[in-house]
Amino acid sequence: MKIMLSALAEKLGLEYTGSDLEITGVNTLEKAREDEVSFLVNPKYAPQLSETRAGCVLTSGPYVEKVERALVSGNVYMDLAKVVEIFAEPQGCMSGVSELAYVHPDAVVDESATIYPFAFIGAGAVIGAGTQVFAGAYVGEKTSVGTGCILYPNCVLMGGLTVGNDVIIQPGAVLGGDGFGFAQTPMGHMKIPQIGNVTVEDRVEIGSNAAIDRAALDSTRIGMGSKLDNLVQIGHNVEIGQHCLIIGQVGVGGSTKVGDGVVLAGQVGVADNAEIGDGAMIGAQSGVAGKVAPGSKMAGSPVMPAGTFLKASGVCMPKLPDLFKRVKKLEKELEALKRTVTNGDEDE
Amino acid sequence: MKIMLSALAEKLGLEYTGSDLEITGVNTLEKAREDEVSFLVNPKYAPQLSETRAGCVLTSGPYVEKVERALVSGNVYMDLAKVVEIFAEPQGCMSGVSELAYVHPDAVVDESATIYPFAFIGAGAVIGAGTQVFAGAYVGEKTSVGTGCILYPNCVLMGGLTVGNDVIIQPGAVLGGDGFGFAQTPMGHMKIPQIGNVTVEDRVEIGSNAAIDRAALDSTRIGMGSKLDNLVQIGHNVEIGQHCLIIGQVGVGGSTKVGDGVVLAGQVGVADNAEIGDGAMIGAQSGVAGKVAPGSKMAGSPVMPAGTFLKASGVCMPKLPDLFKRVKKLEKELEALKRTVTNGDEDE
Amino acid sequence: MKIMLSALAEKLGLEYTGSDLEITGVNTLEKAREDEVSFLVNPKYAPQLSETRAGCVLTSGPYVEKVERALVSGNVYMDLAKVVEIFAEPQGCMSGVSELAYVHPDAVVDESATIYPFAFIGAGAVIGAGTQVFAGAYVGEKTSVGTGCILYPNCVLMGGLTVGNDVIIQPGAVLGGDGFGFAQTPMGHMKIPQIGNVTVEDRVEIGSNAAIDRAALDSTRIGMGSKLDNLVQIGHNVEIGQHCLIIGQVGVGGSTKVGDGVVLAGQVGVADNAEIGDGAMIGAQSGVAGKVAPGSKMAGSPVMPAGTFLKASGVCMPKLPDLFKRVKKLEKELEALKRTVTNGDEDE
Repeated sequence: MKIMLSALAEKLGLEYTGSDLEITGVNTLEKAREDEVSFLVNPKYAPQLSETRAGCVLTSGPYVEKVERALVSGNVYMDLAKVVEIFAEPQGCMSGVSELAYVHPDAVVDESATIYPFAFIGAGAVIGAGTQVFAGAYVGEKTSVGTGCILYPNCVLMGGLTVGNDVIIQPGAVLGGDGFGFAQTPMGHMKIPQIGNVTVEDRVEIGSNAAIDRAALDSTRIGMGSKLDNLVQIGHNVEIGQHCLIIGQVGVGGSTKVGDGVVLAGQVGVADNAEIGDGAMIGAQSGVAGKVAPGSKMAGSPVMPAGTFLKASGVCMPKLPDLFKRVKKLEKELEALKRTVTNGDEDE
Repeated sequence: MKIMLSALAEKLGLEYTGSDLEITGVNTLEKAREDEVSFLVNPKYAPQLSETRAGCVLTSGPYVEKVERALVSGNVYMDLAKVVEIFAEPQGCMSGVSELAYVHPDAVVDESATIYPFAFIGAGAVIGAGTQVFAGAYVGEKTSVGTGCILYPNCVLMGGLTVGNDVIIQPGAVLGGDGFGFAQTPMGHMKIPQIGNVTVEDRVEIGSNAAIDRAALDSTRIGMGSKLDNLVQIGHNVEIGQHCLIIGQVGVGGSTKVGDGVVLAGQVGVADNAEIGDGAMIGAQSGVAGKVAPGSKMAGSPVMPAGTFLKASGVCMPKLPDLFKRVKKLEKELEALKRTVTNGDEDE
Repeated sequence: MKIMLSALAEKLGLEYTGSDLEITGVNTLEKAREDEVSFLVNPKYAPQLSETRAGCVLTSGPYVEKVERALVSGNVYMDLAKVVEIFAEPQGCMSGVSELAYVHPDAVVDESATIYPFAFIGAGAVIGAGTQVFAGAYVGEKTSVGTGCILYPNCVLMGGLTVGNDVIIQPGAVLGGDGFGFAQTPMGHMKIPQIGNVTVEDRVEIGSNAAIDRAALDSTRIGMGSKLDNLVQIGHNVEIGQHCLIIGQVGVGGSTKVGDGVVLAGQVGVADNAEIGDGAMIGAQSGVAGKVAPGSKMAGSPVMPAGTFLKASGVCMPKLPDLFKRVKKLEKELEALKRTVTNGDEDE
């Protein structure tokens, strides 16, 4: 892929500075060659501007003047996404339905879909236009997958699920495994069959080896545009709103409701039956139970306001052993002073 | 599936109230139709009783009188499990041994077992009666799987394992991957080959994308009826007792012994060589090392009695910054008072 | 496998005590038979020496004299690794390229490699000499795998990766899934295509169901001899040094640099853009952000020196509720004393 800088700028609807140039790729400031475009957002990396060999830098504000050629952007990450899209070679090396795949005679696979060897498409499953099902992926009976989706290798969509359009399932992710539901009986834990399903709305992405359980009854739901990172666990009957970011190794317990635009940072745990309001942000490794108000920023386990947690855990905790000494000293000194005051007359 | 309420009640050995009715399914109070049965356990959802359209509600005690028709139960979750079982359609759409599966000539597969396309059954493996091996599942050489088991898609049972009867392995779970064992040498970490195995007893369930390591020597054991949730990690030579509940994303370090009936809540970490006594309950995100007494309820990292943790972390931590201020104030005031007392005579 | 103790000792370059004996295997002190060798390192298990039936014990120092026959070692774990290697039967039951595998016509597979049924080797992929690709493993286009590697069942290596020699990928691990990179736009989160790759150096091991993301641009790197345990998550553009030990369920955020010889204990979380110096050790469940100095031992979330954490969290936290009471008491008593001092004359 080669494109003139001027043509690239036009495609993106951006201005550029400096002379025109043929661009052949996109790379980091450190690694970019003279015919590649790079980018700068984080001021931490600004010193690299003076050393980069990049032919052009996609950036904004004061950085524009510091480079020979700039693509001037109001939203660098967004324009970076567009630039990378232009140069990206998508994963995969096949098209059409492989003879080595298993497609059940009652499945409906759009003729523009790609089914790799060793993929399994069950009875009554539907695969939409342009959707790619990589090797070893499993689509269970009556599961419907929309258009433009990518099911990467060895991901599993159990039966009865509904997946929207432009959904990406990374390798090894499991959707629709049984929820963790057992009745306590004198004979031990009796399995409550999980007969609900999973509904995944448009433009959702699910990370590698994540696990989204099917509902006991009804549906587990992942709202439009939400992005779930690797190794995330979503319990049965959870509802995740739209445009959420759920970072790596987060676990969400059964029947919990997560609003729109929520951010759960890495390794957060959310208990069963919790409610997290729209736009809330939960700090890494936090533990949430009960309700979190919309728009709040919380951290800690159990959570408290993030600012409080920062002081309590980051500042106070390391000084806690010292605080115990100070309190002990106070107790002794106060005791001594009490004695002094009480016996004052006699001492003098 | 359709069944009269009277017949359903008889099947379950329960009384019912109200008139007879044809039942066609089971659903939540919110979603149930007039010909479906629902259930109520958690008082939180009792207000929904007045609005549900459910034809019948499986419940107990005071709720029985609040609905037109009730199935009266002494253990609602247990009876719910039975009701759902009646209406459940199990996952899957095939039977018999697929011609697209690989079954080693030296493997023994019961004629009533189901082997899906792209499943792999190694040399000397045994698959018991009624067991289902879904697409992409791997059963290594000399691994024995009992009767009535379900190995869901893309799960992996490496070689030499022993799996009992009625065991369920959710999609993507890995049993018998190598334990994490390395000798420190001047040349770096030298792998200690892991030549032990994994023993899984009857009625165990292993969650999606969980990882149960094979022992270095001897066996890693999962006791009868224990249920492990998604993304759980069990180290080499761990022994898990009977009827345990190990919730999502728990990690258990090597050679640790977990007693019977233990509950490890979500994201708990247990160190190597720890011992957790029968019936102990460990709160979410806790960190366990050393010994935990039978029957104890612990939380925190490192663990302390759960009640103490609740106060220390839930109540005290958010007030910790304030406590530091109070102690500082005490120190100043005490110092001032000391000066007052010492200089008392002179001041007056 | 049978070997005389004298021959075994010679192979290992070790002395032995007692009479010669035919050895047929290796096992724990508890389980070893009379014709098996066992080992002892941890003094905790020394009492078992008097009860073991093991024909010979690999051990060191004072333990040598406590058993009838000893293999005398200066590095018991290292020699154990060698002993086990002698008796180990490697996993697997096939050789050559299975007709049930898919090998793209443009892939290059060494004639000494093993490709199991249902493995997928993409266009332009290279599989080195002696490498084993188990059933259901996926090797994407242009991915190069060196010599002597083992790709266990259902692991996934997406396209464009570089894997060195003697690398072991446990079952279900995913290398090269997309990094978690999205631009915030008024329309929601826009995916930044992840066009970098993953580079895995020689003698690395990756645990079951781990997830190592491909870089946004450039490479995610795992240095020579580093060992990653099960369910570990490595974000895009992370650099892991040589000879690191990264224990189960650790998560490392994007662009973080981890030095050589670092140990991250179980469930540690490391934020984006952090730096961990050579030889640092981070305690279990800790949370790291920013920089950690080389050689330091840290723990807690956020991390502090491990000794401080041990006191603060292990000793002080459980006494925190009591400390609040003590401070309240101090406040009251000081107040009372102040009144006494102020009103002193009048009271008397």
